[in-house]
Amino acid sequence: MSKIDEHELIAKVTERVIAALKQRQPFDGLIPVGISVRHVHITPADLEQLYGPGAQLTKLRDLRQPGEFAANQTVTLIGPRMRPIENVRILGPARSHTQVEISRTDAIVLGLNPPVRPSGKIAGTPGITLVGPAGVVTLKEGVICANRHIHLNEADAARFGVKPDQEVEVEVEGDKALIFEHVQIRVGPKFVLEMHLDTDDANAAGINCGAKAWLRKR
Amino acid sequence: MSKIDEHELIAKVTERVIAALKQRQPFDGLIPVGISVRHVHITPADLEQLYGPGAQLTKLRDLRQPGEFAANQTVTLIGPRMRPIENVRILGPARSHTQVEISRTDAIVLGLNPPVRPSGKIAGTPGITLVGPAGVVTLKEGVICANRHIHLNEADAARFGVKPDQEVEVEVEGDKALIFEHVQIRVGPKFVLEMHLDTDDANAAGINCGAKAWLRKR
Repeated sequence: MSKIDEHELIAKVTERVIAALKQRQPFDGLIPVGISVRHVHITPADLEQLYGPGAQLTKLRDLRQPGEFAANQTVTLIGPRMRPIENVRILGPARSHTQVEISRTDAIVLGLNPPVRPSGKIAGTPGITLVGPAGVVTLKEGVICANRHIHLNEADAARFGVKPDQEVEVEVEGDKALIFEHVQIRVGPKFVLEMHLDTDDANAAGINCGAKAWLRKR
Repeated sequence: MSKIDEHELIAKVTERVIAALKQRQPFDGLIPVGISVRHVHITPADLEQLYGPGAQLTKLRDLRQPGEFAANQTVTLIGPRMRPIENVRILGPARSHTQVEISRTDAIVLGLNPPVRPSGKIAGTPGITLVGPAGVVTLKEGVICANRHIHLNEADAARFGVKPDQEVEVEVEGDKALIFEHVQIRVGPKFVLEMHLDTDDANAAGINCGAKAWLRKR
């Protein structure tokens, strides 16, 4: 053995271990939580089919992400169990694909088994029927359980040390405390810092809109 | 000692220490998951009020815990929002207090805000109305969100190194992976190893009855 000092050796090993442990720091930042209740994104053509020729989305209220809004228009969803879910809100603005985002609890009511997907990734997902006051649209695909995700801008991403599409863990405290895994980082210049959870996740964690959660990198 | 290089020595010791630290962490045992849908435990007197004089619970099927069974009898629940939840099963045998266990999703439908509690701890919890074919019972208290818990016998407890009422973490893998905190250990001589989750927790984790989860001590 070389003549390294025993104390120095202990100090170096300790330092190395602590550095390794720090890489798994528990808490990297506090994130406001937004809860996404079941909702629909819709194409202009499908909106006209449901609400009549010339129909346009009108704003009920702004959402937290700039440009996004809850529309006055709603639909009734019906799946293979023939049980309706009423008053499902359409979110605007209109999109290039119609998409239905539901919780697993909703999926059980409807009789569907949608995959967990990021918004927009609807290839191969189940279809569903949407009922409006002027007509019905039956989608061949488009039903998803939205994946957990955090919206943030580049400054927030730098502050938290996270990159686009990285998955992080997020801890919620309280009686129903839990740690969500597979929370996708979504970076956009206009995004406002917010984690989006569906109602199953929110109810499992026992939280309401405006709760705070802790970002943890692994 | 051989002439091992100083840097190599530090690296090896570090590696060994980190490996040891990791071992005490993640996974201490695999637990079968049972999902508790909303249900009612009932007193003999309340059962007679709902189902008529002399009514007794009859068995639909055994549950996994010995002696426990799902009864043929069900009730309709109604809370302050005046929206019913139908076909809520009574579990037997009869108990000394009537108790209603629901998810937070159910609580929102009913218009209640029950606390997270272990079964039996109903002091100060909200009341609710139960409707049966022969009558109605209005409870002054008795509605809870059941806490997450694991049933096990003493041999299992020794194997996992856990004690009665200890809280552990339990990890579920998959697309909706998460780590449940505050999972209570319940040791009983006849208990069969099983973690009980409500439907919100199960749907947030994307799992069905019979799924497996990993016990983690902190």
